[in-house]
Amino acid sequence: MKYRKVTAIINTDKLESVEARLQEIGVPGLSVTKVKGYGEYADFYSRDWMTQHARIEIFTVPKKVDAIVQTIIDTAQTGNSDDGIVVVLPVEKVYRIRTRALAEDDTF
Amino acid sequence: MKYRKVTAIINTDKLESVEARLQEIGVPGLSVTKVKGYGEYADFYSRDWMTQHARIEIFTVPKKVDAIVQTIIDTAQTGNSDDGIVVVLPVEKVYRIRTRALAEDDTF
Amino acid sequence: MKYRKVTAIINTDKLESVEARLQEIGVPGLSVTKVKGYGEYADFYSRDWMTQHARIEIFTVPKKVDAIVQTIIDTAQTGNSDDGIVVVLPVEKVYRIRTRALAEDDTF
Repeated sequence: MKYRKVTAIINTDKLESVEARLQEIGVPGLSVTKVKGYGEYADFYSRDWMTQHARIEIFTVPKKVDAIVQTIIDTAQTGNSDDGIVVVLPVEKVYRIRTRALAEDDTF
Repeated sequence: MKYRKVTAIINTDKLESVEARLQEIGVPGLSVTKVKGYGEYADFYSRDWMTQHARIEIFTVPKKVDAIVQTIIDTAQTGNSDDGIVVVLPVEKVYRIRTRALAEDDTF
Repeated sequence: MKYRKVTAIINTDKLESVEARLQEIGVPGLSVTKVKGYGEYADFYSRDWMTQHARIEIFTVPKKVDAIVQTIIDTAQTGNSDDGIVVVLPVEKVYRIRTRALAEDDTF
């Protein structure tokens, strides 16, 4: 597949610095949503095991994936159990609505 | 893979008309979330470079993908740099919870 | 691909019991977002055809997928047309931010 989606679920405290670092390395676009969830860090015997995280989604080309993943990990890592995850999914097609064209690079 | 996911990140001003057009062409279901993000249109030197867009997600079968993508582009396109993107991802399985069965078509 | 993403779009009334059952079968993490949408249940001639559902996302390994899907269906099913769907997508990579490592199992 010609494209990838990188999804990161990170601590909301790290969202601003991750966004800034991704812009610095030239990531031309991303989406952010707030999610609730539990993970490695959850105390399942507590009533408030659901914590708030931020989910970042980036569509990109395969050769940019490693730099994006490493930048997110470098910036979001604290060593705590709620640091979150970064996942990479295959993407078949990416169209720019403005130009109606399939993207040839990652400048969506 | 037998199914596809179409994700469109569009200007919220276009959400209502895109939803109406998708219903007209027979799309039987979709989900909408509001997302914040930046893209081609962002002014990285501005403090408010994060704009609000709508993300539409549609699960469908491969033969319906092109009509859905073209309908979204036709309806959401303004020519501005914040028009957004449409992406297509492979999907392995789609189950209807009501019937417990794997979907045979796109009427989820 | 070594990983899968299970996405379930369910009635919000069923969210709490689905989360509890998923913890009981050992699902170590999940994310939840509220979505609006329409589906099989929608009355397209009504103005309020957009209903609120919950979207659950779980990253896991292939051998756990069937148990997760069946648990969600068992718990969320009412027989009504707004019961929702469960879908399975391929995932290429899952990194834990805390350890910087690719996940070897589903304890993300």
